[in-house]
Amino acid sequence: MSSVTPLNALGEFGLINRLQQTITLRQPSTTLGIGDDAAILSPAAGQDTVISTDLLVEGVHFDLTFCPLKHVGYKAVAVNVSDVAAMNATPTQIVVGIAVGARYSVEAIEELYEGMRLACEAYNVDLVGGDTTASRGGLTISVTVLGQVAQGQAVRRSGAQANDLLCVTGDLGGALLGLQVLEREKQAWQADPEFQPELEKYSYVVQRQLRPEARMDVIYELRELGIMPTSMIDISDGLASETLHLCQASGVGARVFTENLPIANPTLEVAEEFSLDPIMCMLNGGEDYELLFTVPLADHDKIKNHPDITIIGHMVPQSEGANLITKAGQAVPLRAQGFKHF
Amino acid sequence: MSSVTPLNALGEFGLINRLQQTITLRQPSTTLGIGDDAAILSPAAGQDTVISTDLLVEGVHFDLTFCPLKHVGYKAVAVNVSDVAAMNATPTQIVVGIAVGARYSVEAIEELYEGMRLACEAYNVDLVGGDTTASRGGLTISVTVLGQVAQGQAVRRSGAQANDLLCVTGDLGGALLGLQVLEREKQAWQADPEFQPELEKYSYVVQRQLRPEARMDVIYELRELGIMPTSMIDISDGLASETLHLCQASGVGARVFTENLPIANPTLEVAEEFSLDPIMCMLNGGEDYELLFTVPLADHDKIKNHPDITIIGHMVPQSEGANLITKAGQAVPLRAQGFKHF
Repeated sequence: MSSVTPLNALGEFGLINRLQQTITLRQPSTTLGIGDDAAILSPAAGQDTVISTDLLVEGVHFDLTFCPLKHVGYKAVAVNVSDVAAMNATPTQIVVGIAVGARYSVEAIEELYEGMRLACEAYNVDLVGGDTTASRGGLTISVTVLGQVAQGQAVRRSGAQANDLLCVTGDLGGALLGLQVLEREKQAWQADPEFQPELEKYSYVVQRQLRPEARMDVIYELRELGIMPTSMIDISDGLASETLHLCQASGVGARVFTENLPIANPTLEVAEEFSLDPIMCMLNGGEDYELLFTVPLADHDKIKNHPDITIIGHMVPQSEGANLITKAGQAVPLRAQGFKHF
Repeated sequence: MSSVTPLNALGEFGLINRLQQTITLRQPSTTLGIGDDAAILSPAAGQDTVISTDLLVEGVHFDLTFCPLKHVGYKAVAVNVSDVAAMNATPTQIVVGIAVGARYSVEAIEELYEGMRLACEAYNVDLVGGDTTASRGGLTISVTVLGQVAQGQAVRRSGAQANDLLCVTGDLGGALLGLQVLEREKQAWQADPEFQPELEKYSYVVQRQLRPEARMDVIYELRELGIMPTSMIDISDGLASETLHLCQASGVGARVFTENLPIANPTLEVAEEFSLDPIMCMLNGGEDYELLFTVPLADHDKIKNHPDITIIGHMVPQSEGANLITKAGQAVPLRAQGFKHF
């Protein structure tokens, strides 16, 4: 049996000291990491810095009945890195704040940090600062990420032009269906604590929900292909909502073809099992953390055979609106139906 | 009567849009503020970046029975700016995450942001990013601050040498006594809801608790005087604890003279009223957010008459330990008794 140390046995400084020992620094721009009033960073000349922050709240963004703390830690970092990817930048440092209730053990918090450590390793990011404090309730995790990008090369939401191709990485809807599976199993387990969930056949969609990856791989590949997106966003609230963000910020419309939307076979199977329309899952499912971006039409040949990128439509003048084009050729206005936490 | 809008009437995007409209950008290095996946910053050449993060949790760091939300917002920014000051850097940008329970109104959150807006104005800082989300409990505020400092000019905790003068800004113990007053009044009010607290005669210490200021003014003055501290820290956990941090990080000892410790008259009066030893209040009272720093002995004449800086002792070789020297000349080992949240 693993040992359990109550948080108050260690105290705040003790906890920070213990966590600090597991940290490796990799970035040449990290001059000083954790341990002073602030970290010191020395970005290379000619670089812009991007910065983004996200909060993950227990009971709102994650449910510890089915989400291991190591996965929560990994996801907390990955979703922030995804924001850096969506700016065409390279992640470099994170700072982490956690507020944690007394019912948590030191070992639980170490599990959480282990997940963050793994994500830092995967994305080559340094954890350079933090704050650890008590909370009256559950666990709240705040991650702020910094990234670097050559001056002027950051990609905003606002640069799309009519006729640009609209592209998406990977496949969609998986994270939403993973959540459906996990919540069904949770209900079954609550009704009968002897119940053993069988998640094996749902491993793809469950993984999409519990352990999303930021698509830094595609960012590096686009650079190698010499493709500079004209606009970009990551898909946290669903394809429909994010497409509308690009349209609004860029002052254009869009045509998205339902036939082109990418879905993985395991996702399709689960959608059928739950009697959910796969198109709706792809349009409105949150948390896939794929990238949605536009490229000039001239880049069509460079991108058309890329295994991780699908061209799902193109941008049009704003007056034409943002529409979904069905298989039958019918135009249906896109609507944001992403989930709201409030 | 002021109107009250429930948070769910506005939704997350609505709240963000509403708050965004109140934001002014001042820093030349802010290329893009709120509204994209990340903000874009373009620090000037030859600058290092410092970064620090703090969480403030309702019921742990602030008590809304006596702390107005506008003050909570101001303090959340000020305590982060204080960390930047303690690195000898100039604050430039913040990002803010808030997790907020359903019982809060839109107007309450706007009060909170109004306090942050005022602090941004006072410290010339840009709010460039944020995340607003629901929580199951109370309010949690995460602030991450960035600052700039000429390359290599950041002041760490680790540079103090034996014979350096140990200096502190402002006066000490006020924030602790302010908290004592507020908690006494809260108990009286809980016992009798008709009770009207008389805070006027305690305004100094209450202000020290509710609305601390980061000592950026002293940082700018030290630069004008041509004084570069050899080590520096801000006082969040009490003078004794912070002195020990400087000693440990620098590998030196210290002699702190009780006679030299600065206390304001109103603080002294409240200490007497509460029968608390003023020396203990100065040594162990948290949240004063004054700066504690060391300067070479050669700077003595430049600093000795500065109205906001007191020389409270000097550093000694590590073998001599960190001691408090009483009026009678007795040496008492310094001990950290700062408050712990766990």
